[in-house]
Amino acid sequence: MSLSEAKKKQGGLAGIIAGESAICTCGLGNGLNYYGYAIEDLAKNAEFEEVAYLLQFGELPTLSQLKEYKQKIIAQRALSEELKAILRAIPKNAHPMNLMQTAVSALGALEGEKEDFSNQDEKIIRLLGILPSILVFWHHYANFGKEISFNSKQESIGGYFLEKLLGKEPKEDFIKAMHCSLILYAEHEFNASTFTARVCASTKSDIFSAISAAIGALRGPLHGGANEAAMYLIQSFNSVEEALKGVNEKLSNKELLMGFGHRVYGAGGDPRNALIKEWSKHLGGDTLLFKVSEAIETLMKEKKPNLPPNADFYSASAYHFMGIKTEYFTPIFIMSRVSGWSAHIKEQRANNKIIRPSSEYIGVEPREFVEIDKR
Amino acid sequence: MSLSEAKKKQGGLAGIIAGESAICTCGLGNGLNYYGYAIEDLAKNAEFEEVAYLLQFGELPTLSQLKEYKQKIIAQRALSEELKAILRAIPKNAHPMNLMQTAVSALGALEGEKEDFSNQDEKIIRLLGILPSILVFWHHYANFGKEISFNSKQESIGGYFLEKLLGKEPKEDFIKAMHCSLILYAEHEFNASTFTARVCASTKSDIFSAISAAIGALRGPLHGGANEAAMYLIQSFNSVEEALKGVNEKLSNKELLMGFGHRVYGAGGDPRNALIKEWSKHLGGDTLLFKVSEAIETLMKEKKPNLPPNADFYSASAYHFMGIKTEYFTPIFIMSRVSGWSAHIKEQRANNKIIRPSSEYIGVEPREFVEIDKR
Repeated sequence: MSLSEAKKKQGGLAGIIAGESAICTCGLGNGLNYYGYAIEDLAKNAEFEEVAYLLQFGELPTLSQLKEYKQKIIAQRALSEELKAILRAIPKNAHPMNLMQTAVSALGALEGEKEDFSNQDEKIIRLLGILPSILVFWHHYANFGKEISFNSKQESIGGYFLEKLLGKEPKEDFIKAMHCSLILYAEHEFNASTFTARVCASTKSDIFSAISAAIGALRGPLHGGANEAAMYLIQSFNSVEEALKGVNEKLSNKELLMGFGHRVYGAGGDPRNALIKEWSKHLGGDTLLFKVSEAIETLMKEKKPNLPPNADFYSASAYHFMGIKTEYFTPIFIMSRVSGWSAHIKEQRANNKIIRPSSEYIGVEPREFVEIDKR
Repeated sequence: MSLSEAKKKQGGLAGIIAGESAICTCGLGNGLNYYGYAIEDLAKNAEFEEVAYLLQFGELPTLSQLKEYKQKIIAQRALSEELKAILRAIPKNAHPMNLMQTAVSALGALEGEKEDFSNQDEKIIRLLGILPSILVFWHHYANFGKEISFNSKQESIGGYFLEKLLGKEPKEDFIKAMHCSLILYAEHEFNASTFTARVCASTKSDIFSAISAAIGALRGPLHGGANEAAMYLIQSFNSVEEALKGVNEKLSNKELLMGFGHRVYGAGGDPRNALIKEWSKHLGGDTLLFKVSEAIETLMKEKKPNLPPNADFYSASAYHFMGIKTEYFTPIFIMSRVSGWSAHIKEQRANNKIIRPSSEYIGVEPREFVEIDKR
């Protein structure tokens, strides 16, 4: 059995080439690159908006291009009255990911894309601008009955989101940590949500339908939901000793630990982990939460060397140290990954063929129909 | 190059086995079967609800099981006040498919599924019951400012939908034609929307997220949107002669004709076509629309024998003869296919592995990052 045959037997299309893409390498010799740029360079030296521009247009922006791009995004922050009415109808106990999916579907109904996709770039910018507003508008309305304004001096998506969520000017470090986190989450080749977006776009559906579909996939705990699951794990322990004992027990029970392991990286490790860990340490290195996190990481390295921590593990504590509640970790992932999803939708459209695989039939043989009163 | 290699080169995962399934065969020697039952038997002898039950539970219902199942579906027709508020916010010029996606996403936010999926069967029945109500409530409110009630003597999904949409008791023939059409559209293996639902469900996301994602894929003109596209084509001609001339021109210009050809059937033809054609003929055989349809079919048979008409071609005229406006053809597809999508979500969950393929990288080589002020 060849390697690819073996992979096919694993199921889940693991290792199966589902199409060509020029956007991202991951799990290959050269590490994680967006349009050829190493994730380390981007995460340390760029703003998220530079990376969003790179993903949207294939090249890093000049200073003036970036300035214009950011102004366009800022101009797209406000919600229409119709969208506000929809968000007001959704109570505070709703799952924030279902809320986000509803809002993006509704944007399709309220502000739809042109059928020839000629305004797709405008719609991508609309999404980049409005996604943080959707979550914070709903957050304040559902919880406190308060309608926020969308005015802000914050020029970045991360800074704007933090200011509106927390109701105060965010620390400069928080803004930088958000840039890093949003850059790390922006793009990751044919992951489940991106692949969902591509399948959807391959029927020539509109961009809002496809992004909404991708949000549906990201919601799952095996995908975007993993950063929240990692947080609940870390927070469940009140000391390093308790964490070591608890994780050992989970390993004995063969429980899956979210935040560890990744299909495309395997034992080589997720290059995003070190980058976000640095921010987590910077923001909360002296806290019990960080110490518990590091203790779990060390124990896992020893016990499960093939399951190194992925990007989700320290993203969780980094967000927590900024004061963001756990339920919003995956919605933040949307605000970032929308840039990668959009890049893939554009690429799929540029050379489209409907994505329609087959299944291996394992069901019953043909059988005779029996009229209902003879059953 | 082997057949499968050749198929891989075609792209779009054509002919690639993406997983196992016991639900449906199509394009194989035994024709289109749902859980072993031939589509011809089901379409001619069953009600849609029998088929929905078959897809949900794997066996045809007894008379008492069917009665109970229908009662449960009927009990799920009403919209909550929150959902009504959301639908009221969406204006009449919205695309009905974006509207349907919004409503299903909103159901996820308002009535979410349990995290362990233990109430998935209840949620499937909720969707079967409520989907027609969503469309007709919005239709009457957006167009006429009128709020309809959800009471009806109609026991079937098709009959209820027709009564509420058209505001009068539907003819017995119309109800039967709806049963046939809904049965034909209920399930079709790993088509793009079903595959979308499976990818989404494979992250362990909830059923509303996955169905909403599937709706996004169905919207595209290369998929569910094809029945509407077929209608616009047929309606664009005022005589048989005009139709023949027009279609010949389109063929010369190598235009794609919606309603013809199908990846999995090829030249062998779509077995659903003859079944729905019979109903179209019965309902409107003496109309110009039907004559134009048949003339196009005959011409295509001669000119493009590898592109026989698919299920969409005569579904279009059949719906039209019942008085349904073209924009609602694809939403009706949702009311039917939700049964197939749900069957696949259940099957995916029962033996889950996240669906995460890879891409072939065709992008730029790794390149050095240049600081923004030096670009």
